[in-house]
Amino acid sequence: MKMSLDDVEKLRNDMKEITNQILGLISHRMEIAKKIGEIKTILDLEIVDDKAELDIKTHVLGNSKSLNLDPEFTGRIINLLITEAVRIQENERQKKLHELRTVNENTHELQASKQLLHEPIKRNLLTDINQISRPQIKSHLDVFNFAKVLEAEGKKIIHMEVGEPDFPPPVEIRHELAKIYDEGKYHYTKTIGITDLRERLASYLTTFLTQRTNNNIYEFTVNPQNIVITPGGRFGIFGTFSSLLRPGDEIIVIEPAWPACQDCANYLGVKTRIVKSNLENNWEPNLNEIESQININTKILCLNYPNNPTGKILSKETLQKIVALASRSNLYILSDEVYSNYAYKPFESIINFGYDKAILVNSFSKTFAMTGFRVGFTYSLDKRVIEKLTKIQALALTSVAEPMQWCASLALDADPQLYSRIMKDRIELVCDGLRDLPFEYVIPDGAMYVFAKIKNDIKITDLKLVGSLLDNGVAVAPGSGFGSIYSNFIRISTCIDADKIKRGLEIIAMTMENIQR
Amino acid sequence: MKMSLDDVEKLRNDMKEITNQILGLISHRMEIAKKIGEIKTILDLEIVDDKAELDIKTHVLGNSKSLNLDPEFTGRIINLLITEAVRIQENERQKKLHELRTVNENTHELQASKQLLHEPIKRNLLTDINQISRPQIKSHLDVFNFAKVLEAEGKKIIHMEVGEPDFPPPVEIRHELAKIYDEGKYHYTKTIGITDLRERLASYLTTFLTQRTNNNIYEFTVNPQNIVITPGGRFGIFGTFSSLLRPGDEIIVIEPAWPACQDCANYLGVKTRIVKSNLENNWEPNLNEIESQININTKILCLNYPNNPTGKILSKETLQKIVALASRSNLYILSDEVYSNYAYKPFESIINFGYDKAILVNSFSKTFAMTGFRVGFTYSLDKRVIEKLTKIQALALTSVAEPMQWCASLALDADPQLYSRIMKDRIELVCDGLRDLPFEYVIPDGAMYVFAKIKNDIKITDLKLVGSLLDNGVAVAPGSGFGSIYSNFIRISTCIDADKIKRGLEIIAMTMENIQR
Repeated sequence: MKMSLDDVEKLRNDMKEITNQILGLISHRMEIAKKIGEIKTILDLEIVDDKAELDIKTHVLGNSKSLNLDPEFTGRIINLLITEAVRIQENERQKKLHELRTVNENTHELQASKQLLHEPIKRNLLTDINQISRPQIKSHLDVFNFAKVLEAEGKKIIHMEVGEPDFPPPVEIRHELAKIYDEGKYHYTKTIGITDLRERLASYLTTFLTQRTNNNIYEFTVNPQNIVITPGGRFGIFGTFSSLLRPGDEIIVIEPAWPACQDCANYLGVKTRIVKSNLENNWEPNLNEIESQININTKILCLNYPNNPTGKILSKETLQKIVALASRSNLYILSDEVYSNYAYKPFESIINFGYDKAILVNSFSKTFAMTGFRVGFTYSLDKRVIEKLTKIQALALTSVAEPMQWCASLALDADPQLYSRIMKDRIELVCDGLRDLPFEYVIPDGAMYVFAKIKNDIKITDLKLVGSLLDNGVAVAPGSGFGSIYSNFIRISTCIDADKIKRGLEIIAMTMENIQR
Repeated sequence: MKMSLDDVEKLRNDMKEITNQILGLISHRMEIAKKIGEIKTILDLEIVDDKAELDIKTHVLGNSKSLNLDPEFTGRIINLLITEAVRIQENERQKKLHELRTVNENTHELQASKQLLHEPIKRNLLTDINQISRPQIKSHLDVFNFAKVLEAEGKKIIHMEVGEPDFPPPVEIRHELAKIYDEGKYHYTKTIGITDLRERLASYLTTFLTQRTNNNIYEFTVNPQNIVITPGGRFGIFGTFSSLLRPGDEIIVIEPAWPACQDCANYLGVKTRIVKSNLENNWEPNLNEIESQININTKILCLNYPNNPTGKILSKETLQKIVALASRSNLYILSDEVYSNYAYKPFESIINFGYDKAILVNSFSKTFAMTGFRVGFTYSLDKRVIEKLTKIQALALTSVAEPMQWCASLALDADPQLYSRIMKDRIELVCDGLRDLPFEYVIPDGAMYVFAKIKNDIKITDLKLVGSLLDNGVAVAPGSGFGSIYSNFIRISTCIDADKIKRGLEIIAMTMENIQR
């Protein structure tokens, strides 16, 4: 075969021609998007239509296999096309609304167009209702930040909204901190974490998991090589998602849920499919529903037990079924077990099941009351997960602060069950206090929260109740921050001492009485 | 105009059909790319041809105007197509080379194919030549890791490869660490960083920048609200890129360069356009060349002065021109100034120019010898940059470890010029030592490295030299880790004391003598 630069030149010209054709078709595609946008505006439909998007994506990704294209690349192209189409449709909508507004200033159409704006209206509910200037409150963090503002103005607030243990960390850390400087423990470390911490943690986990469970299904010793030290459990989720997922992939999340998984998924262009659990079912997830959400793009099933906000712990049997289900579809299970120290009944870690696609995310934050040290860890039997996570951590931040890693290592000498015994008592205190109030709840199996449903006969949303409670001096978290359907729930956390809890409960009781009057 | 959901359904089907056609054409385009890749392999041509790329892009973008597409969007699509084509061509090349190797094991073609392999051969050179089993060494980190292995085997190594100051951090930190526990400074902090640190840092920066520059062009006070505390300078780059760039966007990097910017860009599917500076031009970047690389998709121009590895500092005049150039194309300038404390002539920070799209990335790591504390910061006048970076930091890691933030705050009481005076003396020591050896170099304006070119008459690559030096007990970094054309350079760092530097230079001299013999 004789080949020359002329051949390259000729092929390049072909390439230009094809590229022009591609862009011609893309332009045509955008014209169609515009038309759809116009119709949607007139029919008052949401522009972003998850089902339709997914339908197109699945259809096209399926086709791309026969075209011999890399699915990651195809996913990126499709994503760019969809994002641009949404942008164009938004533009069209704005134009159309402007037209309607200008032409029919005082007609029925104006009302229709105003209703299109329901999203921003919903978000400002709190402001409307309480007639005072308040920031948008959607999550426990918003409440915390606004409570801080009120405190700065001199108001006394009892904090039952945040999940930060109020205990001091193990005293071993005090001594360790004092030695860091003289011992020169302040250098770059291996990205995966210092050996001392990983080895001690491996043996700690082996013991912990053997103690807490009744019967181990799977005999194992935790290997330090399967552990990555991360800056908090959060980076375990962010890093795992960033390295395993591509735009167009999907994860499954069981609600109510701490929003981190969904936030990370959104950031990556990954779709979250939600399975809702409910109080009436004792917060048991419906396995059939999980199964029905699995499709070709599903990559990770996210678990979080003991659960934030419900405190639910899954039984060994349920977990076994979930593992079997994940295994059939070759899914990763990312199990966020940051509350595992706060288990008030037998607790099984996902790693007890020997599933090689299980990923355990955990942290020193809650277990050892070390939130501000920012030390967490991720464990997986799958070496590729460990390697990929390490690689993205190297890219983002080199390594976790060495002094903090040593503190975490020394914390392992302490017994964190002291903390969990205190927390259990407080949980009981809150449950007792709520018994005669218009709330329903399941006594939590673990964690540091009570997720309480406002009884049906009380017509108040979580956001309004949170506002009233703040006015009266108690901060709690709105249920809707853990899933849109939980807007008749509040999450009460137990990270303050018994006296403050009692006072908080009194204020809650008084507030509810006023509301019912 | 009557419209219904049926119309939407029909349009959606059209869209699917067109999307399929688009992907069909893309697949065809990739087939052509494969063919070009094959020919290039046989003709022994470089796969990445920036000129040809830009040619296609300009041609197609010109055409796309009539198509009523947003040129930025079109550029992104083209960039994705080009990047994927390059990936496919690389694959083809590897396949072809493998074929040649297998089929013609003992023939002339083998020689030809081996020559084609110059890249992989170069990478494995070290192994071939020294007849011992060595890992692939491509960067200073690889050298460091391999040096650690040699040390574990009992070999003495003088470390002139890493950029970690050997001084202890300011002694103020020793006291601060001892107080952290009792003062309860170990909680979640605001994601943006604790107020104390940001305020003290703002006033430190204001003073620092006024002292170091000759004439301020722009009168300013650094506002703490424009500072985000990050876990090291690295997260400043990772986070800024992640929040400002999308796949298909472009950045410009001036080589030689620390590879972090390119690594982050690759991770995000962002194209890096490289402008090469050279020793003969005193490491001055060519502004026309920078300008010629700017196109519709260019979003960030990356600067790193004092430069790693050359130590170059740009003059005020050059920086002014760069700012003007960036301003004309509405580009962000991300200026990595982590070596700003090690400036041995007047130094201007990018923030001295009042450019609202300037982003300063800096860190306590080098300035205060605090690498392992992982505290850095990003400053920008553009509030959206600050907000976006804060948001991604909240997503990835909540906040920087509180104890480490307090240590950084206390470090600001110390005078880091003590460190820079020591480093300057060491730089002079290395330059003196190299004077009579077969190297060329420019005396560095700053930083903690000497980037030395192996004289042309010595026929040895950086990797081979690095290998010989390691055998003799000195670790240095290969130049090719900072850009492919610098494979006749080594980077010698000055993070060890004068005695060790002298011993290291003796070994370098001895090694060079052996090579020349």
